[in-house]
Amino acid sequence: MKKIAVIGSGLIGRAWSMVFARAGLTVQLFDIADGAVDKAVDLIGDGLEELKSSGLIKEDTSSILKRITKAKTLEDAVGDVDYVQENTSERLDIKKEVFSQLDAAAPKHCVLASSTSTIKTSLFSEHLNGRERCIVAHPVNPPHVVPIVEVSPSTWTSDEITQKTYELHQRVGQVPIIVKKEVSGFILNRLQAALLREAWRLVDEDYVSVEDLDKTVRDGLGLRWAFMGPFETIDLNAPGGVADYAERFGGAFDEMMQHVSYQQWSHDLISKVEQQRREIMSHAEHGAREEWRDKRLMALVAHKRAMDESA
Amino acid sequence: MKKIAVIGSGLIGRAWSMVFARAGLTVQLFDIADGAVDKAVDLIGDGLEELKSSGLIKEDTSSILKRITKAKTLEDAVGDVDYVQENTSERLDIKKEVFSQLDAAAPKHCVLASSTSTIKTSLFSEHLNGRERCIVAHPVNPPHVVPIVEVSPSTWTSDEITQKTYELHQRVGQVPIIVKKEVSGFILNRLQAALLREAWRLVDEDYVSVEDLDKTVRDGLGLRWAFMGPFETIDLNAPGGVADYAERFGGAFDEMMQHVSYQQWSHDLISKVEQQRREIMSHAEHGAREEWRDKRLMALVAHKRAMDESA
Repeated sequence: MKKIAVIGSGLIGRAWSMVFARAGLTVQLFDIADGAVDKAVDLIGDGLEELKSSGLIKEDTSSILKRITKAKTLEDAVGDVDYVQENTSERLDIKKEVFSQLDAAAPKHCVLASSTSTIKTSLFSEHLNGRERCIVAHPVNPPHVVPIVEVSPSTWTSDEITQKTYELHQRVGQVPIIVKKEVSGFILNRLQAALLREAWRLVDEDYVSVEDLDKTVRDGLGLRWAFMGPFETIDLNAPGGVADYAERFGGAFDEMMQHVSYQQWSHDLISKVEQQRREIMSHAEHGAREEWRDKRLMALVAHKRAMDESA
Repeated sequence: MKKIAVIGSGLIGRAWSMVFARAGLTVQLFDIADGAVDKAVDLIGDGLEELKSSGLIKEDTSSILKRITKAKTLEDAVGDVDYVQENTSERLDIKKEVFSQLDAAAPKHCVLASSTSTIKTSLFSEHLNGRERCIVAHPVNPPHVVPIVEVSPSTWTSDEITQKTYELHQRVGQVPIIVKKEVSGFILNRLQAALLREAWRLVDEDYVSVEDLDKTVRDGLGLRWAFMGPFETIDLNAPGGVADYAERFGGAFDEMMQHVSYQQWSHDLISKVEQQRREIMSHAEHGAREEWRDKRLMALVAHKRAMDESA
């Protein structure tokens, strides 16, 4: 795999362009909106500078940028590539139409992957002749900083396509995982939903404030998870490993969870959380705090990389 | 608050001794087992050296150690202190007996706090004359590295005691939170239980491997949580903040979670997870990996502190 098409030049499409180009691959970027690709390439230049100053890339940003070319049509973008990463609107009708065009225009061996976070591969590919080469490769925003990629095939996606997608993402420095069967939310958002469900409930029933709940994660629970994940965490938290952990603490976990049933986030509850967040950070500060977050994310990823390399 | 008694010299008691002593307070350490305190003070010396080499303390370890004294009896340990941090066995009968002794021996103004992770304040303090000064101050292991402290009063704990406990932990550099009403698991373990419940289920129903689930958290979901927490994360993930987020994504989260009911971790499932973990790391590697984890935790905390200071 040497040549990649990125379809859609929003936040995610620009981030993917950086991911593939910094790994030495050629990127052909297309967007249906007039002038969007020109703007996108300027913003990609800025993004590469940020990566450089965070120590996440070493190559000159100008030589990385040279590997990104602007395509005038979708057909030009995908006509000679090995892999397509699609990033258009999160609407099934649009995805179906775009994948029809991709299937018609891309060479037979080419993988057709979507960045969608909410639409299963089977839903946008069922109608296609080339449905066996369609797949989801779901990133976390922004993928040029956060490495996880959820590779989620449908039942008719060929094993070869799944394998090629996995290997490509591994090769360009991302961390791919395989979602073995289609499931809404894939893995990451299901785990987030499970924790958020309890977080909202604990605030709703007035056990804790929003700020104290965030502290509990950022200064406690989240620290191990940020470099081990939940299973390695509990595996190391009992001398005999995870089975020993289940033996020791399974009962306590059962007791905590068995009476908790699912409830929607109510309007009143949303207002309560919104109000507490606005006391901590006003709407006017949102943009600046996003910039802070992105710098912290890059620094954290650089820190983890340095620790891995010194091990 | 200047003088602290630490009761119990296991892993948690030793870590608390470091927390209080490095903050300049005097610590009187007691353990009922013969010779335990001597061994503990040696291990505390080692622990302080690790903190020093991770950049988490600047003072000479020998001068910090001088603030930790060995008490011969429980009465000697607590007779003249302002705050007691109890770390004996996680058994209600033992806690009740130890707190009876503490209530009899400690000065009237002294806070009596337990490190328990599973026993509510009301359960170990109900029988005491001084029950209004009893409270839980639950750390995460090890508290000299992980800053969160869950302060969980009973209905009869006085507000003054809750406030003094909160302020002490804040002053010594921990991150206290208030658990407003008693709840099993407090906040941190309830959030962990909620995420683990979904994690075990996704492995059980064969959507994902144990290793890929861990990757999803450590290379994706856990990165933001490690410095923001879940509410700030979603607050920043929609342009209008958390209410906007709920409007945009509440429906998708409902769909993901509404059909999921609670199931105990089955024997077969525990075996499946245990087997996958043992393929990644053998039992023989457990100790070395724990050391790796503790170094990574210290480095992560040092990294976060440096980022906070440079902001």
